[in-house]
Amino acid sequence: MTGTRINGLLKALKQADAFLAVSIVNVRYMTGFTGSSGYAIISGKGNWFITDFRYAEQAEQEVKTGYDIVVENRRGPDAIAAVCKRLGLKTIAFEESLSYGFTMGLTAKGLRIQATTDIVERLRAQKEATELAAIRRAVKRAEEAFLEVKPRIRAGVTENSIALRLEERLRRKGCRRIPFDIIVASGPNSSLPHAKPTGRRLKPGDLVTIDWGGEADGYFSDMTRTFLLRGPDMSEKKKIYHLVLAAQMEGLRVLAPGKGGRTVDSRARDVIKKAGYARYFGHGLGHGVGLDVHELPRLSPLSSGKLRKKMVVTVEPGVYVPGLGGVRIEDMAVLEEGGARRLTSLPRRLEILS
Amino acid sequence: MTGTRINGLLKALKQADAFLAVSIVNVRYMTGFTGSSGYAIISGKGNWFITDFRYAEQAEQEVKTGYDIVVENRRGPDAIAAVCKRLGLKTIAFEESLSYGFTMGLTAKGLRIQATTDIVERLRAQKEATELAAIRRAVKRAEEAFLEVKPRIRAGVTENSIALRLEERLRRKGCRRIPFDIIVASGPNSSLPHAKPTGRRLKPGDLVTIDWGGEADGYFSDMTRTFLLRGPDMSEKKKIYHLVLAAQMEGLRVLAPGKGGRTVDSRARDVIKKAGYARYFGHGLGHGVGLDVHELPRLSPLSSGKLRKKMVVTVEPGVYVPGLGGVRIEDMAVLEEGGARRLTSLPRRLEILS
Repeated sequence: MTGTRINGLLKALKQADAFLAVSIVNVRYMTGFTGSSGYAIISGKGNWFITDFRYAEQAEQEVKTGYDIVVENRRGPDAIAAVCKRLGLKTIAFEESLSYGFTMGLTAKGLRIQATTDIVERLRAQKEATELAAIRRAVKRAEEAFLEVKPRIRAGVTENSIALRLEERLRRKGCRRIPFDIIVASGPNSSLPHAKPTGRRLKPGDLVTIDWGGEADGYFSDMTRTFLLRGPDMSEKKKIYHLVLAAQMEGLRVLAPGKGGRTVDSRARDVIKKAGYARYFGHGLGHGVGLDVHELPRLSPLSSGKLRKKMVVTVEPGVYVPGLGGVRIEDMAVLEEGGARRLTSLPRRLEILS
Repeated sequence: MTGTRINGLLKALKQADAFLAVSIVNVRYMTGFTGSSGYAIISGKGNWFITDFRYAEQAEQEVKTGYDIVVENRRGPDAIAAVCKRLGLKTIAFEESLSYGFTMGLTAKGLRIQATTDIVERLRAQKEATELAAIRRAVKRAEEAFLEVKPRIRAGVTENSIALRLEERLRRKGCRRIPFDIIVASGPNSSLPHAKPTGRRLKPGDLVTIDWGGEADGYFSDMTRTFLLRGPDMSEKKKIYHLVLAAQMEGLRVLAPGKGGRTVDSRARDVIKKAGYARYFGHGLGHGVGLDVHELPRLSPLSSGKLRKKMVVTVEPGVYVPGLGGVRIEDMAVLEEGGARRLTSLPRRLEILS
């Protein structure tokens, strides 16, 4: 996070002396610390990164200039309160994602607290150039890994073995984390939007949905492709594939800075609705991707606010027909002046595999 | 979770009409649901599992009898409030780990709320037979995977490549999740208790610490071994190895139902303290392992309460000397009448590898 953004963050605080970040992803964004336990405090008087013994050396190596590192072997609210006392900070703004128990620990120590909503998350939504470069690498790794595994998508192969092989390839491409459990859902399983891979063997006529992502420098990618295996009863499956693809292209077409996340969702959703499949598309159209694989902004009927330049989102309509199977097509795009540029590049036309 | 335990949970509530679980691990424990989005409500009037469209089919397949499944396409507090209204539930006990924002959403909808601490987590600490069997499988997978990778622990090999290979083997043994990023820390890196693997090549004289875990049916295992590569300056490294091993054996020896987690920690810590290395052991002695890889009980200077039968814990003292390197030895054990039984079986004597 740049200095300009820190200043923006400070301005967003009202009567608070300081902003406390506990969400480890926000802490990473703000400070550069990649470990799993640490807090950040930003104030007009200075900025602090607080961790314990286990991460002291790592903090020295990673935390950006502009933060003083405090090693505090108390944990949680006790650590925060001790540091705030030393620094003379009395009213602390905090993330509303913070646990209720943690906030009670802060007030028990005499701190005044003030909940905030998505202050850092909104900053994170608009990517800086280095962040976008990391996301592009995460996309590249995911696409290359997938292409190496794609020949295995054929009748007789189990969902599990495709998922396992894909994960191995992602690791070999350099992904240190896998953003979510890979979905390989075939035949009737594909009608569960979030199916886990099973020992089921792919069969002729199956729709096969694969949803996976990569990682680079802590940033994620997220994409989905659906294939059809040549076999019986292909006509409705082809139909829903083309329908989902049309909806996805419409979503990408209207995606632009200044549009509402809800508007983009509804434009894509309308394509599915007009074909009579609205009840089979039960999730939002897309979501931001960055240090979290699901982050702001949302493209959904529930989203509010306008999209802005440099946001990175997925566009992933789906139609899931119980018994028949499901189709989801997911690409990532970055918002630019007047439109959006796809970050993912795998083909989207219907591929019928043998 | 058995019916007896549900009754115990209901008794722990005071004036609340119902207990709401949002922590997805608690929800899994209570209901059997393995997806990533769902809530559980338990009350004297009945039990409900609440999820959205995406998980409706999975919930039908997984959620235990005794729960009514509610598919609610509102999310978060709105979904809970809608269900509570239909059911006539007015005062809801909740987990203090719940986010502050979520609790505000509940009160905004007119619900009365009551924070609770570790109600389900305390039940989870004492394992049922099926849970213990899963943990044993998770241990077995982790040990078998490790033994296949062990020949690679030699000078010239990178930390990254050992970690990658170990993860692949864990996957091949059937682990669907990897409980935490595997640590392979060599030479000076080993003095960071939570080091990430790097491209550093192992060198003669290195201490090499490997901390990894497996999974089976959602339950985790967690273990650590440290090796010494034959080379220069081995004497202090050997000394701290034997010291850590002595501390670990003392911890395992005193571990028993009825003991305090703090007592067990201090007995092991004393061994290190007497040798003058207390300042190089900055973390707790151990922690519970189950559906979370870190769960109750704690063995640490900060823990309170007594250990009980059927708890599963790690015992993992460490000594980390900046510049020289670190040693940690971690086993898992289950508490039984009068003592503890090791679940991990890899040898612990100092192995000097070439």
